[in-house]
Amino acid sequence: MIYTYIFRKKVKELVDNEFYKIVQKLNLEYEFLSGNFGLEKENVRVNELGKLALTPHPAVFGNKLTHPFITTDFSESQIEMITPMFQTLEESFHFLENIHHIVTLELNDEYLWPQSNPPMLPEEEKIPIAKYDDSKKGKEAEIYREKLAVGYGKKKQMISGIHYNFSFQEEFLMKIYKEQNTNKTYKQFKNDIYLQISRHILKYRWLLIYLFGASPGVHSSYNKECIEMMEKLDQESSYFVYASSFRNGVCGYRNERELNVSYHSVDEYVKDIKKLINDGKIQSVKEYYSPVRLKSKSCSDLLTSLEYDGVDYLELRILDLNPFLTVGVDLNTLYFVHLFILFGLFKQEVNKNEHSQMIPLINHELTASLGRKHNLKLFKSVHEVVSIHEWGIEILDEMLTFISTLGIKKQYFQQIINNAKYKFKHPEKSTSSLILEAIREKSFIQFHMDKAKQYLNISKSKSYNLLGYEDMELSTQILLKDSIKKGIHFEILDRNDNFIVLKNEMKKEYIKQATKTSLDSYSTIQMMENKLVTKKVLIEQGINAPIGQHYLTMDEALSSFNQFSGMGIVIKPKSTNFGLGITILKNDYSLASYKRAVELAFHHDNSILIEQFINGKEYRFFVIKDEVVGILHRVPANVTGDGISSIRNLVHEKNKNPLRGQGYRTPLEKIKLGENEETFLSSQGLNFQSIPKIGEIVYLRENSNISTGGDSIDFTDVIPRSYKDIAVSAAKTVSATICGVDMIIKDHHSQNLKENYSIIELNFNPAIHIHCYPYKGEDRKLGEKLLEVLGF
Amino acid sequence: MIYTYIFRKKVKELVDNEFYKIVQKLNLEYEFLSGNFGLEKENVRVNELGKLALTPHPAVFGNKLTHPFITTDFSESQIEMITPMFQTLEESFHFLENIHHIVTLELNDEYLWPQSNPPMLPEEEKIPIAKYDDSKKGKEAEIYREKLAVGYGKKKQMISGIHYNFSFQEEFLMKIYKEQNTNKTYKQFKNDIYLQISRHILKYRWLLIYLFGASPGVHSSYNKECIEMMEKLDQESSYFVYASSFRNGVCGYRNERELNVSYHSVDEYVKDIKKLINDGKIQSVKEYYSPVRLKSKSCSDLLTSLEYDGVDYLELRILDLNPFLTVGVDLNTLYFVHLFILFGLFKQEVNKNEHSQMIPLINHELTASLGRKHNLKLFKSVHEVVSIHEWGIEILDEMLTFISTLGIKKQYFQQIINNAKYKFKHPEKSTSSLILEAIREKSFIQFHMDKAKQYLNISKSKSYNLLGYEDMELSTQILLKDSIKKGIHFEILDRNDNFIVLKNEMKKEYIKQATKTSLDSYSTIQMMENKLVTKKVLIEQGINAPIGQHYLTMDEALSSFNQFSGMGIVIKPKSTNFGLGITILKNDYSLASYKRAVELAFHHDNSILIEQFINGKEYRFFVIKDEVVGILHRVPANVTGDGISSIRNLVHEKNKNPLRGQGYRTPLEKIKLGENEETFLSSQGLNFQSIPKIGEIVYLRENSNISTGGDSIDFTDVIPRSYKDIAVSAAKTVSATICGVDMIIKDHHSQNLKENYSIIELNFNPAIHIHCYPYKGEDRKLGEKLLEVLGF
Repeated sequence: MIYTYIFRKKVKELVDNEFYKIVQKLNLEYEFLSGNFGLEKENVRVNELGKLALTPHPAVFGNKLTHPFITTDFSESQIEMITPMFQTLEESFHFLENIHHIVTLELNDEYLWPQSNPPMLPEEEKIPIAKYDDSKKGKEAEIYREKLAVGYGKKKQMISGIHYNFSFQEEFLMKIYKEQNTNKTYKQFKNDIYLQISRHILKYRWLLIYLFGASPGVHSSYNKECIEMMEKLDQESSYFVYASSFRNGVCGYRNERELNVSYHSVDEYVKDIKKLINDGKIQSVKEYYSPVRLKSKSCSDLLTSLEYDGVDYLELRILDLNPFLTVGVDLNTLYFVHLFILFGLFKQEVNKNEHSQMIPLINHELTASLGRKHNLKLFKSVHEVVSIHEWGIEILDEMLTFISTLGIKKQYFQQIINNAKYKFKHPEKSTSSLILEAIREKSFIQFHMDKAKQYLNISKSKSYNLLGYEDMELSTQILLKDSIKKGIHFEILDRNDNFIVLKNEMKKEYIKQATKTSLDSYSTIQMMENKLVTKKVLIEQGINAPIGQHYLTMDEALSSFNQFSGMGIVIKPKSTNFGLGITILKNDYSLASYKRAVELAFHHDNSILIEQFINGKEYRFFVIKDEVVGILHRVPANVTGDGISSIRNLVHEKNKNPLRGQGYRTPLEKIKLGENEETFLSSQGLNFQSIPKIGEIVYLRENSNISTGGDSIDFTDVIPRSYKDIAVSAAKTVSATICGVDMIIKDHHSQNLKENYSIIELNFNPAIHIHCYPYKGEDRKLGEKLLEVLGF
Repeated sequence: MIYTYIFRKKVKELVDNEFYKIVQKLNLEYEFLSGNFGLEKENVRVNELGKLALTPHPAVFGNKLTHPFITTDFSESQIEMITPMFQTLEESFHFLENIHHIVTLELNDEYLWPQSNPPMLPEEEKIPIAKYDDSKKGKEAEIYREKLAVGYGKKKQMISGIHYNFSFQEEFLMKIYKEQNTNKTYKQFKNDIYLQISRHILKYRWLLIYLFGASPGVHSSYNKECIEMMEKLDQESSYFVYASSFRNGVCGYRNERELNVSYHSVDEYVKDIKKLINDGKIQSVKEYYSPVRLKSKSCSDLLTSLEYDGVDYLELRILDLNPFLTVGVDLNTLYFVHLFILFGLFKQEVNKNEHSQMIPLINHELTASLGRKHNLKLFKSVHEVVSIHEWGIEILDEMLTFISTLGIKKQYFQQIINNAKYKFKHPEKSTSSLILEAIREKSFIQFHMDKAKQYLNISKSKSYNLLGYEDMELSTQILLKDSIKKGIHFEILDRNDNFIVLKNEMKKEYIKQATKTSLDSYSTIQMMENKLVTKKVLIEQGINAPIGQHYLTMDEALSSFNQFSGMGIVIKPKSTNFGLGITILKNDYSLASYKRAVELAFHHDNSILIEQFINGKEYRFFVIKDEVVGILHRVPANVTGDGISSIRNLVHEKNKNPLRGQGYRTPLEKIKLGENEETFLSSQGLNFQSIPKIGEIVYLRENSNISTGGDSIDFTDVIPRSYKDIAVSAAKTVSATICGVDMIIKDHHSQNLKENYSIIELNFNPAIHIHCYPYKGEDRKLGEKLLEVLGF
């Protein structure tokens, strides 16, 4: 009874907050829980032994100064990954994952080091500062880093972490502002919101450090004066025994001395930072390494922009890379931080004007270096100390109270908070504790390198997917992935339609299904779509296509008998239906059999086609402009015998290939052991239990579709140049820039080109993924090639 | 019995012809009856009184030197119409009809004179020679005509006629050649075929003159020395009493003296003509006015080309304009000539080497000037005369024998020959005779002007159709018609698809459904096709579109309540079905009613749309590039009362408009008096018998579709510039060159633009015919404008 009373009282007190009350009143919870979310993280590159890689930043990522997603931080070996702002955390997180995978797969025999604290470092002078081009900006970037190297030492600058950018959506803040009866300007109102959140975070940041600290140990190649302060963790690393986050601690990544900057108003914040710069304590606002920073729209002149335009978003800099997680962070962590931010608008501030940041700083230091110490006391105020575990649980309970007022995602959020409570109750289950345990088991380098290698395999296994976009066509996913790689912004306009827009400062390109672009005109598309027209223009240009005619009457068809003399022909109803009414006549057929075939076809439709019969293998040529960028041949579902395994087992084995899946979400489909396959095998006197000889190829299907387990085989380097030239010419007959040319070739070794090929179709929306993830052969990097021809 | 015997003998003798025997043997009758057919005709322009028009050639037809279809002959007032070569006579004839209608409709208060002999001519010097531009070719053309004026007098040059170009298809001749065991070259073989036909035509040309002669009388303003030779026909015209064709006679359009040119071989033909030119008897080969001329591929150097490449086709120049026929000729006439040509390969030549052309010439003269004289005798040989009627019927019977050997179109051809026989049996029913009768009844000028005016009305009544292409979309027909007008060649690639190609020497343009062209990129089309994307880009560019959202869950939809506050909205299932599940909420609705509407919509689909409700009238803006070229508003089927007629009668009256038809082949549809209309009237307390007051508008439908009898009303000049600018900007958001912008406008008089319009759709395949043939308003000539933007 007493408990209930207290609980109620607390709720009352806590919700006595104007902002949150308006959210509730206007039923704006959905918008309150939305926002703009951006993530940044650094990882240093290492070689297989866990030594800092001394190679240059991968050239494929282009210009470090302009790439919006992938660049370098302090060191040439320190990759920085940046997501755009998204309206949901999921999108932002998936984007970070995607950058991570893309980067991982572009490293040659190198790995992303999954720990905030540096790997095995060389001597100070051998650590490479990031190199830029000769532009003014490039020079400035290098000079800035050289000064940092002098001021902090290069080793400290190698510490990496995660930054979390947040703002509310503008329309939402505007609605709250309008409802609030205030004589503040909108700018003041908005600044006050973000300042309140910042003060809240600063005050309770120790809680984040405890929960998400993941850098308890450091390699002994780190700065000697630091290592000497610490205990040995294993042969190669050291630690503060109760530390949760070395990175956030005294030897971590921070300003050399404590900097006093007010978060009472934006004006004071700006004034204080300007003073630090004037006094030569920091080079620029970038060097103000606070756990929370106020950000404005302009990066180049942040302070002026803050003064004039107000706060645009907040940057939280407290999260360590968590080596247990592939990309160093997970969605639950990000949600926790988001709730923690919102909680700052729910929890009433005791004393808004409390300027001193001394107590929060002490709590920060204590948690970073001693957080897991049993019964560690933190300062609630100058006069009051409390156990970290007790206080942690108290705050988390308040967060649960806050969450209980929400209507959306309540249970999910509660689970997140309860997990956090568990870590306060069981310090030995905290992330930092688990990391120490793992290091002790394997050694500092071994543990992290094992993880790095494991994460490389994860990147590889998902290489054809873009996370968060798996419901889209593979071709579109590839194009988006390559856009990220090349630093092109994108937006999904219609997911179901695979409709996207790519953009940089120079241009916008609207694209549907990866290959429907502005490069081809509508009439080009129409020509390819109409098979009669395609053939007409091909033949007109002297390119082989099955000669054929369309007949509306028996008389016309019969009178054309002589026209086809000497060639094999296919006679078929115009609309074919399960192959009914089709006759193939190969050479030397009589007028009588021709007549029977024509009659049969007319029996099934009132117009018929008579076409040249073409013998040979079918190849898909992917043409971009003047070049064939990929050639693919499809083979029906098959297995190759080993003399021991049954067909059933060979299929199971073949289906383990990660490229094979189900439901067209993978580059290849799993081979089925169904009725069709059974029938086809039995026609060869085989069944699923038959054991093929070593090297014997057994086909399970007649048709070569990928969708029924067929193999795609890259022939790009095999087919001679002369056929490629024909494919390019064929695309040009319809003025196509992007074109899938389907060509039948009798024998690509033959010298007699003219009699050896025929083009049976031109496709205006050719898939690109089949050329990027063939069953056999190379990734032809069609996404990159498309982006290039699109002018990106 | 005797008759049968003779008949059999004849057949035997006649089919003793190698060429025709091979046709039969190879079963190539279909190809034998095919060919390449081209037509040319001249008509002089006259004013309403039947006087030669002295105005310039209509500027709309561009450059006379380069226009392939519409140019001038000798005189500025003498329009020459030329069809391309077609594989069927039907196509060729329809094309001629189309040019005729197009020309007719471009004349301002002038008419095409439907008679080969000239209308009322001014004095010799006042007849305008065709004017050309200042180019070398233009100058040459004028000088050539000036010499003709001196050589023949201008009046003679005003005589007009029809030329008929024919050749076999090359593949067909090649097949015959290959089968024939000959040591001739292919060129020799082909030349011999065309020479044989030419000799045949020359020999029997009197038959064509008799049958198709249609210029028995001539206006007295013609050359005095001719008129003086003749009898008075009426107050204003003269004639040779038994003449069938003045044009083909002594005073007609022919060389000044008889020119002897051999048709024995091409070499001799060329040699003889060269001699005539060298001797100064004719200026050039063009001036050799023979009834049949050998033609080659090159027009500019015909004789050399004839020698080197051989005969390409034949030109028959014997046909008069028949004033009883709209365009001066009909398909049956053309078929007769075709059969007559083919007959030349069937009928064995008695004496191939018979050089003399004297007897055929005498027969020609006799028939032209005395053809209808009872029992007129012609010369079968120097030694044998025979009555024209007897001989005519004899030849026609031979043609019937020839036709009896054919399998295709036999009955139709027999009918044509039998009609000709009838004209030999009844000279008073010959065309020339009927014309004289009509002239006597009305006067020379009156008869022909009545016909000219009647033919103008025929041109008007079919103005939206292109003959021979009526099965295609009206928009495509308009584009093709304007192509003819502008002298652009076209080809139909796929009729069902309305897929065409336009071409001149400079470029080719593939076009589907009139507005699917190379001017718009595929991504532009995709953007317009996707309504979500269209809206997104419009709104992004600050253009009004119904604000809306797509919701997949009830929660999302409900949480957006505030977002729509203050605006009327439509809540609907994403896929609407007969309007089920749609709610319109106008202003000040409660959360409860919003929720009910959302629930209702979700009841019908698993995703819903909530969109701003837009009030006003809908207009279609047709944008080409930077310009709005047409604005149309549709009104539901309606009638306007006259105080006397019932609704039923008003509908009948309104349906008489030639623009109204049935089945979407006309610009407007007839208003129906069906169940829907009855129901809608009864909801207004009316029925089909009700009599609306004078000026009262009664609607018979709620929907404004043209397909249910709606009216299209042109607003192009009514809607203010500012809305046009918006439409152009809207098209630009998707980079469209051709775009149908559907805009709702509350009140186009309002100054408050921003709140007064909304764009609900962008169309990538807007119809053009609705802007060319509106119920009310001007023809906005969209076909011409499209051709212009296409670069023609």
